[in-house]
Amino acid sequence: MVLDANWFTEVCEEGGSAFSLKIRRKLHEEQTPYQRIEIYETETFGNLMVIDGFIMLSSRDNFLYHEMMSHPALFTHPAPRRVVIIGGGDCGTLREVLRHPEIEHVLQVEIDERVTRLAEQYFPELCEANGDPRAEFFFGDGIRWMAEAEPGSVDVIIVDSTDPIGPAKGLFTEDFYRNCHRALGEAGVVVQQSESPLYHLDILLPMHRAMRAAGFSETRSLHFPQPVYPSGWWTATMGLKGCTTDGWRRADAAGKTFPTRYYSAETHAAALAQPPFFLQALEGS
Amino acid sequence: MVLDANWFTEVCEEGGSAFSLKIRRKLHEEQTPYQRIEIYETETFGNLMVIDGFIMLSSRDNFLYHEMMSHPALFTHPAPRRVVIIGGGDCGTLREVLRHPEIEHVLQVEIDERVTRLAEQYFPELCEANGDPRAEFFFGDGIRWMAEAEPGSVDVIIVDSTDPIGPAKGLFTEDFYRNCHRALGEAGVVVQQSESPLYHLDILLPMHRAMRAAGFSETRSLHFPQPVYPSGWWTATMGLKGCTTDGWRRADAAGKTFPTRYYSAETHAAALAQPPFFLQALEGS
Repeated sequence: MVLDANWFTEVCEEGGSAFSLKIRRKLHEEQTPYQRIEIYETETFGNLMVIDGFIMLSSRDNFLYHEMMSHPALFTHPAPRRVVIIGGGDCGTLREVLRHPEIEHVLQVEIDERVTRLAEQYFPELCEANGDPRAEFFFGDGIRWMAEAEPGSVDVIIVDSTDPIGPAKGLFTEDFYRNCHRALGEAGVVVQQSESPLYHLDILLPMHRAMRAAGFSETRSLHFPQPVYPSGWWTATMGLKGCTTDGWRRADAAGKTFPTRYYSAETHAAALAQPPFFLQALEGS
Repeated sequence: MVLDANWFTEVCEEGGSAFSLKIRRKLHEEQTPYQRIEIYETETFGNLMVIDGFIMLSSRDNFLYHEMMSHPALFTHPAPRRVVIIGGGDCGTLREVLRHPEIEHVLQVEIDERVTRLAEQYFPELCEANGDPRAEFFFGDGIRWMAEAEPGSVDVIIVDSTDPIGPAKGLFTEDFYRNCHRALGEAGVVVQQSESPLYHLDILLPMHRAMRAAGFSETRSLHFPQPVYPSGWWTATMGLKGCTTDGWRRADAAGKTFPTRYYSAETHAAALAQPPFFLQALEGS
């Protein structure tokens, strides 16, 4: 069948596929200095944020992405206190980070303040921790911020960006990872959204190589479902400095006192499993 | 954007979402006594089989489903020799089962012979093991077959069916599971495709209850990615008799001598992880 105008459709050219959500109405649309932002009310996925035609998040399933962008990296670092989020303007990752009581400071560096202002309006549940005194907001260029960061000043860096086109392109480079590596302390973790393992090996494999070339001693992709993203199967890739992915604090994760819907010690371990086709691609690259 | 006629679109009404693949041409279409079958050539997913408007499989990503429908259940049974597949007409599951050298006999009970004949033509790679002397084909009603099966005559039952509408509806009932339980030996495993954990808890939860009511001592859903199915996130649910999911033959899986692209001992363990929201739904049901 052909979908009518009551559907929002995102075409994934490189996948040869498209994903659509039935919408009730468009709630907002604007062109910022950086990008075009649309907000829709959907039939079954709650509110939907779209940037430059690409789905960023829905109310219904963002818990998968936000929990997996934050908790595995935080439970991998031996003693995280200082976190920097690059991007993350919808504040969903920030909320998850702030659930960890040992975190003392989170700086969010988002280039487009309008993303955060619209999230406050249309995704208020993601912004409920924004008033936490440990949270600091800086609206500016994350690539430049990282280049100027004080060496050893960060424990965990979370790169919660759009796809590697437009303003986010520089976030997928060896130069950027080198700056991350310098900004991290003796033990440090960078974690970055890294697209679909089925569609985007051409992004994932160079990313692993670039992180290692930048000095990270180990890299590892976390695998998890994310229905509104192309193929419904997504990854976040970690670069490790002075710690290991297998050395994650499993007992702490199992004993966590905050609620999660997808993340648990079990799903953390599950996300670390690497399918044979993926391992082979990594080894051959 | 609105997709033109160069796309095949499956709408998932209950999910409020749709998934589309760009197609080059329709290769075949027919109405059988049971259902309407269409075959397309896609741009990036190889060939595509559609039954009654629902995507059954693509050349590109069926390895995820077929490997996860077969290997976890076979490595969970302590010593599988006799397997029955209900449905599975495309023969992809059969091929995976036959990779296990200890399997002595596999009977495939598919109601619609045309599915198998079209698979031979358009998905020949899935049918490459059809000539194996251990494989037997019976084209008939799986529900009736199971009702008449000799007690204790099967080690592993794989229910590789369409969604629980139309001819497959009776495969999701306590009566059917009771017949499966009787057909299984002292140790036995039934595994059945069980839809999306995000969209179909209304199918999954009754299925767990029905399997337990039918006598299975344990039930467990396996979670894995499947891009062409609604939400891109799928499950297969196992019912256990005289064995346990945690007692699976991990060393045998790790030492397997046949190739797989998604399945491994690591992804088997990963598929057993139950996200908190899913566990809570099961416990509350």
